[in-house]
Amino acid sequence: MSCLKNTEVPGIGQIKKAYEQIRKYVHQTPLMTSRYINSIAGANIIFKCENFQKGGAFKIRGALNAVFSNLKEYKKYGITTHSSGNHAQAVAIAGLMSDIKVHVVMPENAPEVKTEAVKSYKSIITFCKPTLKDREETMERLIAEYGYKPIHSYNDINVITGQASASLELFNQLDHKIDYLVTPVGGGGLLSGTCLVCSYISPHTKVIGAEPETANDAYLSFKKKQFVPSVAPKTIADGLRTSLGSLTFPIIIEKASDIILTKEASIINAMKLIWERMKIVVEPSSAVALAAIFDNQEIFRNKTIGVILTGGNVDLKKLPWLNSKI
Amino acid sequence: MSCLKNTEVPGIGQIKKAYEQIRKYVHQTPLMTSRYINSIAGANIIFKCENFQKGGAFKIRGALNAVFSNLKEYKKYGITTHSSGNHAQAVAIAGLMSDIKVHVVMPENAPEVKTEAVKSYKSIITFCKPTLKDREETMERLIAEYGYKPIHSYNDINVITGQASASLELFNQLDHKIDYLVTPVGGGGLLSGTCLVCSYISPHTKVIGAEPETANDAYLSFKKKQFVPSVAPKTIADGLRTSLGSLTFPIIIEKASDIILTKEASIINAMKLIWERMKIVVEPSSAVALAAIFDNQEIFRNKTIGVILTGGNVDLKKLPWLNSKI
Repeated sequence: MSCLKNTEVPGIGQIKKAYEQIRKYVHQTPLMTSRYINSIAGANIIFKCENFQKGGAFKIRGALNAVFSNLKEYKKYGITTHSSGNHAQAVAIAGLMSDIKVHVVMPENAPEVKTEAVKSYKSIITFCKPTLKDREETMERLIAEYGYKPIHSYNDINVITGQASASLELFNQLDHKIDYLVTPVGGGGLLSGTCLVCSYISPHTKVIGAEPETANDAYLSFKKKQFVPSVAPKTIADGLRTSLGSLTFPIIIEKASDIILTKEASIINAMKLIWERMKIVVEPSSAVALAAIFDNQEIFRNKTIGVILTGGNVDLKKLPWLNSKI
Repeated sequence: MSCLKNTEVPGIGQIKKAYEQIRKYVHQTPLMTSRYINSIAGANIIFKCENFQKGGAFKIRGALNAVFSNLKEYKKYGITTHSSGNHAQAVAIAGLMSDIKVHVVMPENAPEVKTEAVKSYKSIITFCKPTLKDREETMERLIAEYGYKPIHSYNDINVITGQASASLELFNQLDHKIDYLVTPVGGGGLLSGTCLVCSYISPHTKVIGAEPETANDAYLSFKKKQFVPSVAPKTIADGLRTSLGSLTFPIIIEKASDIILTKEASIINAMKLIWERMKIVVEPSSAVALAAIFDNQEIFRNKTIGVILTGGNVDLKKLPWLNSKI
């Protein structure tokens, strides 16, 4: 796999430039806290609510930055991507805003709410089997056939620096220090961007990735310091079923403090708790960070923790607690 | 029924005093807007999100103001109330904060999430049949037996002035005028308080109550200018099954601009739309205002409308759209 040379790792200037480029078009999402959740966690948690972001997830940051950075080329050729939903939706919005043709590949098990949203933004969808191999092959076929340019959902420098703007904005909003910053990890776009931001502007903040136990490829990659792919993982967190990428993996290996795991039942519990107590709608992938904090409570006791709630696109007729005993 | 004399109708000074008394203990809830919902409504809607309020509903405002206004007496005798949930929870919180014994009467069909919350705040619950008569009789029995002082959920001046603080706060937060202010109406505590605030500080704003078609007692009372009781209404909006009170009825008759109705299916639709698009959790009673705006769209076209989202206490395992075809 190809890696970035050290000189190619985006600097803080590049991240700030990305944020400047997109900030007029994204929401400055609010921070929230819950006394009740803090009392359970035994810690002080500040949630950055990207579920309120345009398109219902942080993904619009990376998609817009990628599109704005290559506007001429993308307008000429059209764009494609593969995604289980939020990135597809983000690229669809970015394309619609910029008058660019968008054709996305989505796995056939993507939540209906996400496929419907993509359609509502006028993008074409081609469905495929829900494996990384099928997604990539289908996208390659579209590129060969139509000449589209791809915007990878995480393995793209402009996407990484775009996602990094979420934590940059978080630090701008805070008036005090945080000990930990926890984000879910799927392909690592958000986590690698967060690692970069902290290393530049808050080096004492430890960045931790949170991953479902049943989709622990990033955890294994981090512990072995060697890329381990995700192979058909079974987790409710539909946004976290991907493998790390050649660009995100080395940044995470070098700069993340740890990757921690959480159980499926804990994810459902944490998601329900956020809905019940904070009165906000978050999707399962979003709840993974809080679930992992609960499942690894000894690390975080009495600490101040930033948590990026990544998105809120959920099929309201298929809520995970309706089929479980939780 | 007893009415207030004109000289007893609370003035703006009394409402401001109530707000001063409670403001340290309640949240200044945020305002939210949704471009998508505005595009459907053909209007500009500003939501005041009392679902984020302490106890998950605006009711804490009235409960705290009542308790703080009679602290000595309530401490001596203890307090009781009857409520399907949010007022009970609010009184329970106010009692716990002030070290006052609280014993509430709840109908046996109150949502479990609300009865559990009341228990979590250390109040005693006595359940009764779900009619107003049973609720009142059960409460009278408790008063006779234990000597408690009652805090009525809406027919109490301190409760009305406390609830009025929600719209007072809304006007403090706004930097422009609003044409309409729409609130759900059950017993009329919030609606009458809102009427008072608008009549004093924004007289050009028309105040409208929104009510389920299947629980249209306030609508009938308003149109006939004569009190019509609520008799075992069947609506998903569990907070709106009560009748107007002797204190709220005359204020509403005199100062409200209209009371409008909405269908059960519209309530469920509006609730789901708020969850999906605004990513916030609101209960059915909360969604009644938006549903009524959609069902009476001609009134509101191109207007600026304030809507009080009254609460977010929902049993997440019993969502209305799971049993309907919507």
